[in-house]
Amino acid sequence: MTQPAYSPGLEGVIATATSISYLDTEHEQIVLRGYDLMELARSKRYTEVAYLTLYGRLPEASELRAFEDRLRQEAELPEEVYRLLDLLPSRMHVMDAQRTVLSYLAGLEDPAELQDTSPEADLRKGVRVLARMPALTANAYRALRGLPRVRPDPSLGFSEGFLYMLVGTRPDPEAVRVFDVTLTCYIEHEMPNSTFAARVIASTLSDLYGALVGAAASLKGPLHGGANEAVAHMLLEILEAGGSARAEQYVLDRLRRGERIMGFGHRVYMRRPDPRAVFLREALPGLAGRRPEGEELLRIYGVVEAVMRREKGLHPNADYPVGLLYYLLGIPIELYTPIFLAARTAGLVAHVAEQHGDNRLFRPRVLYQGPRGLRP
Amino acid sequence: MTQPAYSPGLEGVIATATSISYLDTEHEQIVLRGYDLMELARSKRYTEVAYLTLYGRLPEASELRAFEDRLRQEAELPEEVYRLLDLLPSRMHVMDAQRTVLSYLAGLEDPAELQDTSPEADLRKGVRVLARMPALTANAYRALRGLPRVRPDPSLGFSEGFLYMLVGTRPDPEAVRVFDVTLTCYIEHEMPNSTFAARVIASTLSDLYGALVGAAASLKGPLHGGANEAVAHMLLEILEAGGSARAEQYVLDRLRRGERIMGFGHRVYMRRPDPRAVFLREALPGLAGRRPEGEELLRIYGVVEAVMRREKGLHPNADYPVGLLYYLLGIPIELYTPIFLAARTAGLVAHVAEQHGDNRLFRPRVLYQGPRGLRP
Repeated sequence: MTQPAYSPGLEGVIATATSISYLDTEHEQIVLRGYDLMELARSKRYTEVAYLTLYGRLPEASELRAFEDRLRQEAELPEEVYRLLDLLPSRMHVMDAQRTVLSYLAGLEDPAELQDTSPEADLRKGVRVLARMPALTANAYRALRGLPRVRPDPSLGFSEGFLYMLVGTRPDPEAVRVFDVTLTCYIEHEMPNSTFAARVIASTLSDLYGALVGAAASLKGPLHGGANEAVAHMLLEILEAGGSARAEQYVLDRLRRGERIMGFGHRVYMRRPDPRAVFLREALPGLAGRRPEGEELLRIYGVVEAVMRREKGLHPNADYPVGLLYYLLGIPIELYTPIFLAARTAGLVAHVAEQHGDNRLFRPRVLYQGPRGLRP
Repeated sequence: MTQPAYSPGLEGVIATATSISYLDTEHEQIVLRGYDLMELARSKRYTEVAYLTLYGRLPEASELRAFEDRLRQEAELPEEVYRLLDLLPSRMHVMDAQRTVLSYLAGLEDPAELQDTSPEADLRKGVRVLARMPALTANAYRALRGLPRVRPDPSLGFSEGFLYMLVGTRPDPEAVRVFDVTLTCYIEHEMPNSTFAARVIASTLSDLYGALVGAAASLKGPLHGGANEAVAHMLLEILEAGGSARAEQYVLDRLRRGERIMGFGHRVYMRRPDPRAVFLREALPGLAGRRPEGEELLRIYGVVEAVMRREKGLHPNADYPVGLLYYLLGIPIELYTPIFLAARTAGLVAHVAEQHGDNRLFRPRVLYQGPRGLRP
């Protein structure tokens, strides 16, 4: 092989072969196991798409029932996890709490099962982790905020039960539907930084939990998953600062100061729209009436979007509508990135299983620019 | 840029520019901040090389004193960490315990300091983590094994205090010298999987702790740091199975079954010797008398080495001599990879600081090999 040109951030570099998903920017399609993710989001619920992501094909009705039963049966956290949550310092970031619990959960697996890196064992453990993510996410937040535990309710479906634990009250069907669709939009997205981190780690034949912990660490970053929280904070900041009438000036001021507007643009989509953002935007008007400031936030949303397109030629990515959707659903802002991780767990598990199934250690080289020939 | 050829495992691909270190296979030299790592290992102690790794130049005498004082002052673990250690399931892997504590430590940082991704803040936090790694490593092991806590002794130097906590008794100067040299050999090594994982995660502007947690997850893998433990287990297995007289047959049998002999070969060195392995081997005869089976293990070591060279043309990497050295020093085997992580912390912190100082998000692409055009 000839030495490839150095591409900072591995931009445009092919890091792996995969049969899981692909961003087809030419046809503006997110391909998941052969399907258009947006078609799946319109017609299937999250658990069906999770099954597809993990096992490579859509489930039969009986398979889906069995899969959803497993998710329900394994939804409760072991008692030790609640003791760990009680130990977390209250100022800890929810993402860091989630990551610490994921790391700890490795110790509760049988050691032979933990170290089994066959794709079958990865999927087995992965379904267990996915089942626990709602209770883990909600209770990590609740422990940090001094709120009482909330137990998974086995009478509820996956997304309904998840949203119930996040907001503390029974959600209505429209809220569940929109929340479920956001989870599907977050489920898998080719090779973002967190998925790449998970595959890099898995390639040492380290176990699934290690790979998920690395992905959680990556997703926290403001250039990655942290963006959906940044969007909500920004919209609220503009609301405080004068609302939609001031939104254009707010964006222009930030751009002039060289500051980033989160939720816009994407390495791969470049200057094309992110199909998830286009799709999720449709759900906003129906939810705007749920909070008193909802309609005004929606106007701010529209102004920022228009100014960014005009000034920078940039379109929203998925984090932009999600930041407002979750706010309208009454979910505390610090949970937005942890929810992203919970939804993405299915995709991450699929990638770790695929990596372990046909492994090659990731070990690139560097362009050394330091001194040479010094003597101690 | 033209589309580069797909190179599985990013073999030969340049992932980043760096001024920290470089594996110069042509001159068989590990270059660290311009120096030959083997010359440093012969003439400097670990703390001096750690300073060099972190700050880019060797310390003046007063700077070294101040640096070692800081390591001493910050060596004790916060009380909460001991409570966390008490919660760990006894069957947990020590690497997983270390990783869980590192993840937890993020929550004890002031949130503004935690999220400060300036290189200065990374180095500040990094020195704190490095200072705590000996007590963290030793006490994670001790908690899992039901042994009483051991507190850092401020009268001891870094490596002496570390070894003291690992074995539970005051080490003699020769043991300290050899242990210190192994830490220096492990301190930094260009772009191994764990360092790469740390930089990938840091590139989302996630914080230092997240990057270190990812590196810990990576290092656990048997294709990476886990190899030094595998070496010790293999040498002891051969001892059990008949000793040096049976060693050749043992290796041939494993090779015939297509099994891997750990501690040999390296992606970058390929068929050349790893300079660290050549150097560390020198220390083995002086320690062989420390355990009754030491001389026989040294003979087994030699036979396996010779057979691997003859049969596969492969030379030992650093994990091969370290696996035996740590055993001869009386260190429990399950601590070998955790010690590797503790020593490598200096290099990892330097890489995270460098990544944050001139950041570009890692976001490669994939070669999609799955189906297309399916309809739900």
